[in-house]
Amino acid sequence: MSKLATLFLVCFCWPACINAQTASAEDDLASSIAGYADTVRAIIDAGRQGNDSYLKLQELCDDIGCRLSGSEELEQAIEWAQQSMKADGQENVHAEEVMVRKWVRGHESCEMIEPRHLPIEMLGLGGSLGTPDEGITAEVLVVDSQEELEALPNEQIKDKIVVFNFPMPRYSETKGSGYGTAVQYRTNGARWAAERGAKAALVRSVTAYSLNTPHTGAMRYSGGPDVPKIPAAAITIEGASLLARLQARGITPVVKLYMEARDEGEALSANVLGELVGSEKPEEIVVIGGHIDSWDVGTGAQDDGAGCVAAMEALNILRKLGLRPKRTIRVVLWTNEENGIAGALSYLNRHQDEVHVAGIESDSGGFSPEGLSIDMEDERKEEIAAEQLAEILKLLQPINATRVTTGFSGVDVGQLTSLGTACMGLQVDGRLYFNTHHTHADTVDKVDPQELTDCTITLAVAAWILADMPGRLGEE
Amino acid sequence: MSKLATLFLVCFCWPACINAQTASAEDDLASSIAGYADTVRAIIDAGRQGNDSYLKLQELCDDIGCRLSGSEELEQAIEWAQQSMKADGQENVHAEEVMVRKWVRGHESCEMIEPRHLPIEMLGLGGSLGTPDEGITAEVLVVDSQEELEALPNEQIKDKIVVFNFPMPRYSETKGSGYGTAVQYRTNGARWAAERGAKAALVRSVTAYSLNTPHTGAMRYSGGPDVPKIPAAAITIEGASLLARLQARGITPVVKLYMEARDEGEALSANVLGELVGSEKPEEIVVIGGHIDSWDVGTGAQDDGAGCVAAMEALNILRKLGLRPKRTIRVVLWTNEENGIAGALSYLNRHQDEVHVAGIESDSGGFSPEGLSIDMEDERKEEIAAEQLAEILKLLQPINATRVTTGFSGVDVGQLTSLGTACMGLQVDGRLYFNTHHTHADTVDKVDPQELTDCTITLAVAAWILADMPGRLGEE
Repeated sequence: MSKLATLFLVCFCWPACINAQTASAEDDLASSIAGYADTVRAIIDAGRQGNDSYLKLQELCDDIGCRLSGSEELEQAIEWAQQSMKADGQENVHAEEVMVRKWVRGHESCEMIEPRHLPIEMLGLGGSLGTPDEGITAEVLVVDSQEELEALPNEQIKDKIVVFNFPMPRYSETKGSGYGTAVQYRTNGARWAAERGAKAALVRSVTAYSLNTPHTGAMRYSGGPDVPKIPAAAITIEGASLLARLQARGITPVVKLYMEARDEGEALSANVLGELVGSEKPEEIVVIGGHIDSWDVGTGAQDDGAGCVAAMEALNILRKLGLRPKRTIRVVLWTNEENGIAGALSYLNRHQDEVHVAGIESDSGGFSPEGLSIDMEDERKEEIAAEQLAEILKLLQPINATRVTTGFSGVDVGQLTSLGTACMGLQVDGRLYFNTHHTHADTVDKVDPQELTDCTITLAVAAWILADMPGRLGEE
Repeated sequence: MSKLATLFLVCFCWPACINAQTASAEDDLASSIAGYADTVRAIIDAGRQGNDSYLKLQELCDDIGCRLSGSEELEQAIEWAQQSMKADGQENVHAEEVMVRKWVRGHESCEMIEPRHLPIEMLGLGGSLGTPDEGITAEVLVVDSQEELEALPNEQIKDKIVVFNFPMPRYSETKGSGYGTAVQYRTNGARWAAERGAKAALVRSVTAYSLNTPHTGAMRYSGGPDVPKIPAAAITIEGASLLARLQARGITPVVKLYMEARDEGEALSANVLGELVGSEKPEEIVVIGGHIDSWDVGTGAQDDGAGCVAAMEALNILRKLGLRPKRTIRVVLWTNEENGIAGALSYLNRHQDEVHVAGIESDSGGFSPEGLSIDMEDERKEEIAAEQLAEILKLLQPINATRVTTGFSGVDVGQLTSLGTACMGLQVDGRLYFNTHHTHADTVDKVDPQELTDCTITLAVAAWILADMPGRLGEE
């Protein structure tokens, strides 16, 4: 007999129990959660017997493609998501306008000129300026780290193209946390190089495995008015390590960088919302979602088409099963996560007076789900919520998505922590995620339909219980 | 005490041993091999204390680059290899001219036109014709296998671009043997499609893992005069599976293929040879080598720069140690392995009257060595040779390269089986080999210096013993 079943007997079938008074609110909640077992089984069965998450993913990614903020494709995706949720019968489906920055890549290239001619695969970084029309041709200076750059005298850096050859550790070594360190070079490398007089910055792509694969992503000019804004691009591991090997052998490579990248001002975009309205406390909201925008390469299938369609289809499964929770479950597809988070900030601003009980974002890819991470502003509440969440996820034992971690949720949903919301992120088997992250290879074939189904089920189950259970997550 | 040490005691230190007569030639050989233990230790130590295999790899691949038959770069590599072996003090260093076919890729592209515009990464297949100047634009027919194509009526195939979407199994499922099946589509797909009236053939790249990575390789027009020669290219897994998904949803994609590929007739190339001449039987040859040519993408680092430099540096280690075997060890760097094997055929023709005792080719990448595979024309001799080889490889226990397999050696060295030669292939940890095989990503960063060192040591040890031991491999 399971612990939960025992608790159920203790609380409901043994009124004379001398421990009744210590069968606290915690135990009450646990037993309430255990009471959802049949519904959870029904959700799992319904999802596995067939769902439209993979079809939705194809419609979004194969038919529309990549969806950079300000692009025509993102507008199509926003329209598609509304039509799709309306076709599913969701309530209050609509778009909420958001102004976003429109950055455009244009043509771009990187080639080694000396010691021999060789094209180097690259992707300009989002937010970067372009080069002059004639490009920037300069000697290369390769450094393995920021510290190595800092230690060099200015005259060795001035007028060079600085190459940051910092290697992101393998997933097996860091369980993904290596990204946090390596991405600093992508975000800040141009500033570090410009502060020392460099003409441009090339950053080794933020990945531990490359098949000549450049990874784009956002960069920032954060150095203040005295620091020149210089072009910044990601090059492949292959390119960066070639330049490093040449330099180590006493050869100074010369590289020509050409970029037409430019900011085209503001553009109109939108978040997309759709609801399963609650039966008893419709004003209390449980959000599930992902971000509808992507970079302008690949088709944004894992990042974050998978998150969007999993949330949309989770709601669809609940509706098809005729399940209507006490609270409202709201799908939110945020815009502009990749280069501005204007969507998340706009959502917060527009909806801050509503009661957001909980929010779950799926933005780590549609791989096999492992559980949920949770983040709350109040640490004590986060602790309680994590324990309650663990009870909820016990019901997901059939798909092994039972793990609770703390301290992070998602870039978009995380904005809601300021409202006291229990913010969560779907955690998945992340071994392959960063191989395709922000690349031409982030395409539908990387998403396994069964794994996407399990993500969808996890969202459906968690959203259902969070929206229907007696108390709120994090309440004692 | 090891079995070999025991045998040594039995055979040499116990003359009165009643089993002396059954201490057969086999045991004698085993004890002789065991006698090389100190030399093997010296070779391992010398290699690991520092060797030039990785420097040579950089000179070949970073400084010269890819080396397709008929290219200027291949000529440079042939010149470099001679200079490098001469600088190492090798004997009889020279090039032997070979006429090869010169196939040129030219500009090429593949793009989906319908249902939306999308470039598809591709590489024309070596030997393919180009398209007309205006390209070939046609509806796509995707099949998952040859059998599926065979089962379709001609009218469904006629004038289509046939896409063979056959997936190569993962290495973990087949230990690499999946390549043999999948590569049939690359080699023969154009013929199969042309026989049924198709205009062009696109083949899913022969790999189990892709980051939008096209893999080139050789194809053949083998269908006789009645079968039209149609252009053939490899597209990425991403591209092939997108077309397949669309077709499965009832959408007929239209693709435009453009290729300038052409045969430019014969060109002069060469095999490169260098020797450590034997002290007692210099006319008996042990060959070690790899192929100096590569495809025209990446820099041919694993395929087969690693094999070339491992063989060159193996000879260098032996010479630096002052080791001179009884037989001659000859490094052979064959040309044109990738698209014609003219180098191996020319070598066989030119040297068929010499006594080739053994040959080892390294053409599976410079990964951690696991042992040697052996192939001989005479099955009984192969069986004996495999047992003897196992004794030799026991001495490579410190680098775990002790495994003997049978039935294959290498494409080039394998030509010598017709001379009765014991032909061998260096076997390595092949998990990642086909990820980069014939791609832009086959670059020096994929080669670990320590693993390349261990390949070098394995070749040096095996060559040394095979060239110095009393009998020949495979002799009873």
